[in-house]
Amino acid sequence: MELTETQRQELAEAEAQRHETRRPVSAGLEQILFRPIPVLDHGFVRVVDYMGDDSAVVQAARVSYGRGTKAANEDRGLIRYLLRHRHSTPFEMCEIKYHVKLPIFVARQWIRHRMANVNEYSARYSILDREFYLPAEDQLAAQSAVNRQGRGHVLQGEEAARVLDLLREDATRNYDHYLEMLNEDADGRVIDEGRQGLARELARMNLTLNAYTQWYWKSDLHNLLNFLSLRADAHAQYEIRVYAEAMLDTVKAWVPLVHEAFRDYRMGAVTLSSQMLAVVRGMLDGNPPEQAASGLSKREWRELMAILGREA
Amino acid sequence: MELTETQRQELAEAEAQRHETRRPVSAGLEQILFRPIPVLDHGFVRVVDYMGDDSAVVQAARVSYGRGTKAANEDRGLIRYLLRHRHSTPFEMCEIKYHVKLPIFVARQWIRHRMANVNEYSARYSILDREFYLPAEDQLAAQSAVNRQGRGHVLQGEEAARVLDLLREDATRNYDHYLEMLNEDADGRVIDEGRQGLARELARMNLTLNAYTQWYWKSDLHNLLNFLSLRADAHAQYEIRVYAEAMLDTVKAWVPLVHEAFRDYRMGAVTLSSQMLAVVRGMLDGNPPEQAASGLSKREWRELMAILGREA
Amino acid sequence: MELTETQRQELAEAEAQRHETRRPVSAGLEQILFRPIPVLDHGFVRVVDYMGDDSAVVQAARVSYGRGTKAANEDRGLIRYLLRHRHSTPFEMCEIKYHVKLPIFVARQWIRHRMANVNEYSARYSILDREFYLPAEDQLAAQSAVNRQGRGHVLQGEEAARVLDLLREDATRNYDHYLEMLNEDADGRVIDEGRQGLARELARMNLTLNAYTQWYWKSDLHNLLNFLSLRADAHAQYEIRVYAEAMLDTVKAWVPLVHEAFRDYRMGAVTLSSQMLAVVRGMLDGNPPEQAASGLSKREWRELMAILGREA
Amino acid sequence: MELTETQRQELAEAEAQRHETRRPVSAGLEQILFRPIPVLDHGFVRVVDYMGDDSAVVQAARVSYGRGTKAANEDRGLIRYLLRHRHSTPFEMCEIKYHVKLPIFVARQWIRHRMANVNEYSARYSILDREFYLPAEDQLAAQSAVNRQGRGHVLQGEEAARVLDLLREDATRNYDHYLEMLNEDADGRVIDEGRQGLARELARMNLTLNAYTQWYWKSDLHNLLNFLSLRADAHAQYEIRVYAEAMLDTVKAWVPLVHEAFRDYRMGAVTLSSQMLAVVRGMLDGNPPEQAASGLSKREWRELMAILGREA
Repeated sequence: MELTETQRQELAEAEAQRHETRRPVSAGLEQILFRPIPVLDHGFVRVVDYMGDDSAVVQAARVSYGRGTKAANEDRGLIRYLLRHRHSTPFEMCEIKYHVKLPIFVARQWIRHRMANVNEYSARYSILDREFYLPAEDQLAAQSAVNRQGRGHVLQGEEAARVLDLLREDATRNYDHYLEMLNEDADGRVIDEGRQGLARELARMNLTLNAYTQWYWKSDLHNLLNFLSLRADAHAQYEIRVYAEAMLDTVKAWVPLVHEAFRDYRMGAVTLSSQMLAVVRGMLDGNPPEQAASGLSKREWRELMAILGREA
Repeated sequence: MELTETQRQELAEAEAQRHETRRPVSAGLEQILFRPIPVLDHGFVRVVDYMGDDSAVVQAARVSYGRGTKAANEDRGLIRYLLRHRHSTPFEMCEIKYHVKLPIFVARQWIRHRMANVNEYSARYSILDREFYLPAEDQLAAQSAVNRQGRGHVLQGEEAARVLDLLREDATRNYDHYLEMLNEDADGRVIDEGRQGLARELARMNLTLNAYTQWYWKSDLHNLLNFLSLRADAHAQYEIRVYAEAMLDTVKAWVPLVHEAFRDYRMGAVTLSSQMLAVVRGMLDGNPPEQAASGLSKREWRELMAILGREA
Repeated sequence: MELTETQRQELAEAEAQRHETRRPVSAGLEQILFRPIPVLDHGFVRVVDYMGDDSAVVQAARVSYGRGTKAANEDRGLIRYLLRHRHSTPFEMCEIKYHVKLPIFVARQWIRHRMANVNEYSARYSILDREFYLPAEDQLAAQSAVNRQGRGHVLQGEEAARVLDLLREDATRNYDHYLEMLNEDADGRVIDEGRQGLARELARMNLTLNAYTQWYWKSDLHNLLNFLSLRADAHAQYEIRVYAEAMLDTVKAWVPLVHEAFRDYRMGAVTLSSQMLAVVRGMLDGNPPEQAASGLSKREWRELMAILGREA
Repeated sequence: MELTETQRQELAEAEAQRHETRRPVSAGLEQILFRPIPVLDHGFVRVVDYMGDDSAVVQAARVSYGRGTKAANEDRGLIRYLLRHRHSTPFEMCEIKYHVKLPIFVARQWIRHRMANVNEYSARYSILDREFYLPAEDQLAAQSAVNRQGRGHVLQGEEAARVLDLLREDATRNYDHYLEMLNEDADGRVIDEGRQGLARELARMNLTLNAYTQWYWKSDLHNLLNFLSLRADAHAQYEIRVYAEAMLDTVKAWVPLVHEAFRDYRMGAVTLSSQMLAVVRGMLDGNPPEQAASGLSKREWRELMAILGREA
């Protein structure tokens, strides 16, 4: 996450600004506004703007004229009630905008969340930075033997070294050839006056999927929580999960009451199918059914026992 | 637009707030923040929060680190370029939230714009106010004879008086019966201890479509401009157009450069079909075609001539 | 749900059609296609078109070239897996289109589901039918004493009779005045040549919220299931729930495997918060906590005990 | 666009199917259903399902009970009216589903159109094909000197040859290393039993952006037309434009009346800003203004003159 001198100055100026506003302000979020939170080897997430706070959720649910004079405790209770009962619209009344630097293959997962606004750095107009993601050694995982989607043990020794070499060499070489085809250096200066240079919109196709891109990404709080519940989840790919976790911290700073309710009712919650519920009731009644008779597949049975903290 | 004492106080408190923020601030919008702009006989629009300003559009288009140091003139040029070439995503990076009081039949048109967030005052939980829209005399229009969708001349004399009487009496009577069925007065006090009162979610069905409701409505700037281009248009029904016009003023206060570009390239723009363009080219070449040979219907021909400021 | 002779003929012609297609066909849905399913006193739901079947979900999940040659049992397993793990996109690949006749106050709840396509009968152009919803006697519920949103006991005797009289008389009178203001009868014939008639877009405001409207409503299967999980739920208002239940039957006829999974993993499922899960674990371990120490509110505690089938 | 034997069989079976349906059928689209239309060097577009036809637009606009008995000519008139006046909802009532094979950098542009449903072939689960896009010689364009977003002259001779060599070699090498890291061949067979193989979700990051991916992509007709108006436009990048053009042909086969109206009122239409319109009016009045006094920038002036077929 190396910034140029210009970028550093832009950031410093943004941070130095102080304005007066009548709008609600989130004290927690103001403190970290604009500041890049490092993610992966060259990426970051930073909040660039926001609208609303915990009270804005309450205010919208009540369609009130002012900020409300109810006790803070009532606000907490209402927020918990709304989140628990899937009343999503009051949470749509808060909005946040991030600037994110992320590998292209992560961006391709991320963009599947359609209920957000995005402006991506355009490689049709501009030259991408010479930065690409290389996994840390403890993230160099083998394909899982039991789960087609998951990761298994971490690669060791020669195999690990070979993988890292390949990733580094291929990304570097492809980037260098990208510049050669453009006939430009990374700052846009022509290399060889005798050549024309391939169009940027074409040359970019030589880049690898671990090249870094950037975007502005804006979402309302409801859709952000949906994004986080999927991407901060243990089943999400590590490389997007670390972004989600960094963003979860910004949510905590921004809307602490919503964050607490989200943790209790969404992140830490479990859903039991009708068959699973029947098993639990049977267990409580002292008549625990066998897996075979439960209507649950073996996989679901294992999942249920894990949820209940028992051996399968 | 009569407010209760409590509402007046809530508004006054909201307006009195001053906070420090690092976020960009729109000086023009801060001045009118929270203040209800009267619309129709009992309605209003008021801005309750916003995010971003003209620079936020530029910042997103450039995916920049700071607020940018470019000249204001360059910002204007870029905004005009983006709006002219239908680059919609940078305009999605600004957000605005309104509190609106409006007749139910207007709300039913408005809600058709799906790309917005809405929290409506719930008549399942609460009792609606005793307010309904009655058209002003100069808006009491007859059905248009030439346009199935439009209004014709304004009704006069006896017929006008009869219409207003019917609207007033029916709305009033239905509202009174609504309270009677609820067995509550407008403040929620039980009328007759000997009765149970019909459920609110049922009693509301007796209300007329000119009863007023309220909602919080939030949109990004791109979708707001789409809404305004359709609803501030001369073909929109008067009762929703007056809301759109009030909101257009808030856009002008908020993002003056975007507002100017919107006026030039959207509100004041015209679209010519390929056949219409052929006619214009013919006229400029001194070979104006006849309507019959132009591929335009008579209606389209009239529209084109109106656009060009000529007689059909 | 009285149809005119013309409507009856249109329906009969639509039902009589037979075409050859290469597209997948849902045998169950073809049988009920076009046929109105009566809902409430004058409403209906009918399927007018659809795209895809159970296999289309599987096909999209596999991004396959053909219809797949896998065993039906594997399809069932995959569908259950996808629904259980919130893989929503394959379910978005099926689409269904309904024609619905419904009271306006129900339409106002329904339209809040934004991820659908809607064409509503326009009262700006056309005259609405002389039909309004009157609750059946067993639905004439009092306001719930314990739940601000719910219904309590059914009204009886005089109070019930009075409510029904008011609803009927007010709706009828307002409709008659609507026609009088229009200066048209329900078939659009001018009543009094000496009057102009109020514009339709204005006259409609005199109608009550229990007047019936109609629309075409189209949704993908994923968003339809979201709609049904909220509106076929016991907490939904009765008047929209009966529509959702009728639609649930069409889903069963259309995509029986998806319907079965939806019933097991969504309709019959329960979500336990992290605190609720801790209570369940404690109960299974023989250390059931007290409500006060559980972190659950009294209300949540009651909900949990109801889920588990125990006394609170 | 080489298919495996299995894929060929799946396609043949799909094409051979014949079912009876009561749904409306588009004769034109049935003929090309399932059949891949080649695009670029290894890509394709093929229609895998659809819902509705020209009449469905009319039917929804009228909220009718049957297919309508109006004359075909009236249908055409209504469709043209609806499209011309931006009545978008009736066009949302038709739906189409494509299977597309396309380079990843094209997929990244395409996915920005959010109002569609997508299932992409997952490189977390599966191994991508050994196919990557190499531009044809006449598409090997230099960066435009006048337009930051555009292409200039086609590269010639040595520079062209060098570019093609680099693109081919880098894509091939990176793909081979991808398999090596996976420790699998393209059919998923383990190469070296002594190694574990990197997780698929990681190894894919070594692929280049011209590697081909596949997806199912589904859209309603309104949003499809928006997509096509942007991507079949002369300003779109060639590599996505050829997909849009192939899809435009499928629209013509599917809904010929909508296609005709789209061509006249959208693809062939021009939008004039208020200042441009003033210039045209001045020209028609014999008082053509100078550019400097017109309020148009030089660029806009050139655009206007191009539209009018005059020299700037």
